[in-house]
Amino acid sequence: MLRTNTCGELNRSDINEIVTLTGWVSKVRNLGSLVFVDLRDRYGITQIKISPELYDKVQLKNEYCIKVRGTVARREEANPNLPTGEIEVLADSIDIFAGADLTPFIIADKTDALEDTRLRWRYLDLRRPILQKNMMIRHQILKSTRDYLENLNFLEIETPTLIKSTPEGARDYLVPSRTRPGNFYALPQSPQIFKQLLMIGGMDRYYQIARCYRDEDLRSDRQPEFTQIDCEMSFITRDDVLKVIEGLVDRIWKDVLGIDLEKFTAITYEDSVNKYGTDKPDMRFGMLLTDLTDILSKGSFEAFKGKVIRGIKVPGIAKEISRKAMDKDVELAKQFHIHGVSFFKFENGVISGSLGKFYTPEVLTELAEKEEMSEGDVLIFGADESEEKISFALGALRLEYARKLNLLDPDVFKPCFVVDWPLFGYVDGRLESLSNPFTRPKDEDLKYIDSDPSKIKSYSYDTVINGLELSSGALRIYDGRLQQKVFELLGLTDEDIKKRFGFFVSAFNYGTPPHGGFALGVERLAMLLCKTDNVRDVVAFPKNLQAVDVMCQAPSRVPDKDLDVVGIQIEEKYRKEE
Amino acid sequence: MLRTNTCGELNRSDINEIVTLTGWVSKVRNLGSLVFVDLRDRYGITQIKISPELYDKVQLKNEYCIKVRGTVARREEANPNLPTGEIEVLADSIDIFAGADLTPFIIADKTDALEDTRLRWRYLDLRRPILQKNMMIRHQILKSTRDYLENLNFLEIETPTLIKSTPEGARDYLVPSRTRPGNFYALPQSPQIFKQLLMIGGMDRYYQIARCYRDEDLRSDRQPEFTQIDCEMSFITRDDVLKVIEGLVDRIWKDVLGIDLEKFTAITYEDSVNKYGTDKPDMRFGMLLTDLTDILSKGSFEAFKGKVIRGIKVPGIAKEISRKAMDKDVELAKQFHIHGVSFFKFENGVISGSLGKFYTPEVLTELAEKEEMSEGDVLIFGADESEEKISFALGALRLEYARKLNLLDPDVFKPCFVVDWPLFGYVDGRLESLSNPFTRPKDEDLKYIDSDPSKIKSYSYDTVINGLELSSGALRIYDGRLQQKVFELLGLTDEDIKKRFGFFVSAFNYGTPPHGGFALGVERLAMLLCKTDNVRDVVAFPKNLQAVDVMCQAPSRVPDKDLDVVGIQIEEKYRKEE
Repeated sequence: MLRTNTCGELNRSDINEIVTLTGWVSKVRNLGSLVFVDLRDRYGITQIKISPELYDKVQLKNEYCIKVRGTVARREEANPNLPTGEIEVLADSIDIFAGADLTPFIIADKTDALEDTRLRWRYLDLRRPILQKNMMIRHQILKSTRDYLENLNFLEIETPTLIKSTPEGARDYLVPSRTRPGNFYALPQSPQIFKQLLMIGGMDRYYQIARCYRDEDLRSDRQPEFTQIDCEMSFITRDDVLKVIEGLVDRIWKDVLGIDLEKFTAITYEDSVNKYGTDKPDMRFGMLLTDLTDILSKGSFEAFKGKVIRGIKVPGIAKEISRKAMDKDVELAKQFHIHGVSFFKFENGVISGSLGKFYTPEVLTELAEKEEMSEGDVLIFGADESEEKISFALGALRLEYARKLNLLDPDVFKPCFVVDWPLFGYVDGRLESLSNPFTRPKDEDLKYIDSDPSKIKSYSYDTVINGLELSSGALRIYDGRLQQKVFELLGLTDEDIKKRFGFFVSAFNYGTPPHGGFALGVERLAMLLCKTDNVRDVVAFPKNLQAVDVMCQAPSRVPDKDLDVVGIQIEEKYRKEE
Repeated sequence: MLRTNTCGELNRSDINEIVTLTGWVSKVRNLGSLVFVDLRDRYGITQIKISPELYDKVQLKNEYCIKVRGTVARREEANPNLPTGEIEVLADSIDIFAGADLTPFIIADKTDALEDTRLRWRYLDLRRPILQKNMMIRHQILKSTRDYLENLNFLEIETPTLIKSTPEGARDYLVPSRTRPGNFYALPQSPQIFKQLLMIGGMDRYYQIARCYRDEDLRSDRQPEFTQIDCEMSFITRDDVLKVIEGLVDRIWKDVLGIDLEKFTAITYEDSVNKYGTDKPDMRFGMLLTDLTDILSKGSFEAFKGKVIRGIKVPGIAKEISRKAMDKDVELAKQFHIHGVSFFKFENGVISGSLGKFYTPEVLTELAEKEEMSEGDVLIFGADESEEKISFALGALRLEYARKLNLLDPDVFKPCFVVDWPLFGYVDGRLESLSNPFTRPKDEDLKYIDSDPSKIKSYSYDTVINGLELSSGALRIYDGRLQQKVFELLGLTDEDIKKRFGFFVSAFNYGTPPHGGFALGVERLAMLLCKTDNVRDVVAFPKNLQAVDVMCQAPSRVPDKDLDVVGIQIEEKYRKEE
């Protein structure tokens, strides 16, 4: 090694040692009679003290990459914020490995550089300690995952990434084939089929930290390529899988944050929607939805008749809430395709609000008692034919008020499983799988399969922490006839099935074990643990929202001959250089 | 869990325990009065004993996936070849999870099924214990690698796989972009640029088990997508990197095979070529090349005048070697663009051979003494202007005779580093990088950079075991001017440099640390450790030699609309359905 120590490890016990450090010049303070340099590497910062004579020879500037040989000495004034703050190194000699131009932005945690600038010089951005820390957290997530799963006999098996495009795979990235011009591979959106085939292949327990791809319009928490912790296991019940997930997440939280997570709550999809107004409940705070259908149907307000009425009580905001804020709430609620929401305030012991006139004082008192309203509380409520729609609208308001009331503590973690999802949803009147068509229906609901399949619940489960979906998964169908039946319910013809899942369906003919699994999003995990909302803060070389790598300038034009080799050409309208 | 135990763990100490096992029916022996079933899972095989009454109800066939509840009992005759061979399970009840049709081939280590058949039903092929073992070895390779590297402070960092295509990247797989139609990403052939940028970004030590892609005509040891253990480290000397590689390979051999590898030999490229006739020396056996130029120039054979003459001594084959075998050897040698090779036999104390007449008996005696020839030895020799050509030809014959003489013991491992490669080679009279243009020239050879760059050796190193190249790597250039100079020597114009490496070259302006690294091929490692020549034996879902996944039928046609979205179309001549 060109160094004897890193910049993060020297302390009092090293005083008088002769050491060699390497790293980057992070700061230069030239006092004339002495020069102090902060030397930085991945491990920390060490103060270097340089005589003016020596300094004259090297003339260090920020981000020079150097080697310093010298003696460890006690600092006159210790810096308690730095692990190396008690010492400094008196330089005997300094070698410059490479000089540096003025960087386009300052290498420090706080930066006002535009994200595009940071991405363009990502290798400089990565020198910022906060990004280095994020990369280390991401590393730790992967390491903890592997240690945990391998200890449970999961085998890491790599599945292919040049796979078959599925006809509905509109979000597939395609890869033209040279050996079969006119044909294409697709990059996988997940290893779903392969992990199930591994179970059919008797591998018993599989995991993979899998790169996946989805060509969709990007949001701030998405990247075209992303990574998931992908697992599948055989001969298990749902609770066996949940135990693995809970143990894994516990382990990650313990290793990364030193936190013992509390026991995971399990909540059904139905309860989650009814109480939290979402399938991703944030359990860090209350303000649960309540069912007001019985009480608020007692009035003369025609618009509520025959509908489901739900409300949430927001404590103590009656005085502050403005007309304008209420209008905004109504707008937010309307995004969920309901008519709107109304407000009751509880002030001076009585309920008031624009809909008050439709109810007798007795009903309003009953309401106040049921909701246990205190002085200053506000009840937000609304009605709709659809239980889910009104619930989701109020769920959004619940979150909105949690933000306003500062209830979303990033240092508190409330993990839960959302279980018993419906097997199907209706989209444009047609049945669709809520996750994928391989999810196993609950045994006790199989009786509805012909009469009312929408009633069927499935063995699927999401892991949610603080309203963020970390993982989803399910037990899978292992009976070929049931799989066939589900395909039929989804409206697939035999031709469709053969074309889309042919080889997979025929695998059911050779002894499929009961199996199930899950996939955990690594970027989501990392964002939660690094406490950032920006996925690009947890990816080493991310793409921007246009899916462009601004550092490398990818995607880019390629020579026609390279396209010719794979038998494709660019459509006329896109041919001219941009 | 649906089982209490796996099929690989019950033994004498479990006798009288009531257990539940799950797995696949591997064999049924119906003796009429009793039925014996071998139940198989990833962990092993357990014998199940079933009464005719119970068996009548289930009628098991091979590859049925079942659950068996029963009592562990001592076997009448123990099977010493099976870890569970001392016990059997007396079945109380049997549940069939899923039946099975007759499989297209028998699920056993020995199979005469065509590889195409096995690939088509890969999920059944994967049930063969030998493939399961291979997957477990591959898993262990990855696990040992991670444990070893993480312990040395290497950070696992994921680099992008949708990257920029480089103009010379003829072997790049392309991915058309939807957000910028007419533009393309490329899949990486290696994370080379990104790992160097991570060093510039101060990450100090990086590793990744990286999926890489190369669109080239396949050989039996190649796949279009493959995996490499990719490493890079800063502030190091060459020996620091070699120490990491040696420690890593040692660890893998120890963990997978329980073998303590001997200390790695380091041999220069020049010595390797001169002594082994290859840059990938197989050190399991001798038969080294010797330089015969001095001695064999003493004769009157005109064709040898002024040439380099080399030979290998093959012991004891004088009697067996036929004219035909010699002709074949000559043909093999000619593949290296030399005129051929000749043979001297040492029989009855004298050398004889067709070229004998060109030499005096004294010279022939001198030759026999120098080569320490014994009765029955054969000397194969040849000459060429090019030292490398004649050496490589004899190196191929050396290997050929090692095979014939059965010297290639798969249980013996001889690891070495081949170091000090030339920085450049000449291709069609032009300088070309032997590995990549970022490799650092040896300090002491920089003096040749203007006068004779072909003399420059580099800080590059290959790891070779038993003639198989496992890894290659190098220290990298960290001085921008030197990098510029190397680009110029390679004949790149400023325009070329900017277009191909623009952002990378400008990264040199901001303090690049001395760094270097290596990449180890996972498939190569796995093949060596699984003792197979077929890369498809160590890949879960491989492609065939036409780069086709015959199970999924990828690549395949995709709908025109999917191509339209990314702005491409198939060339006319490839449009018709195949």
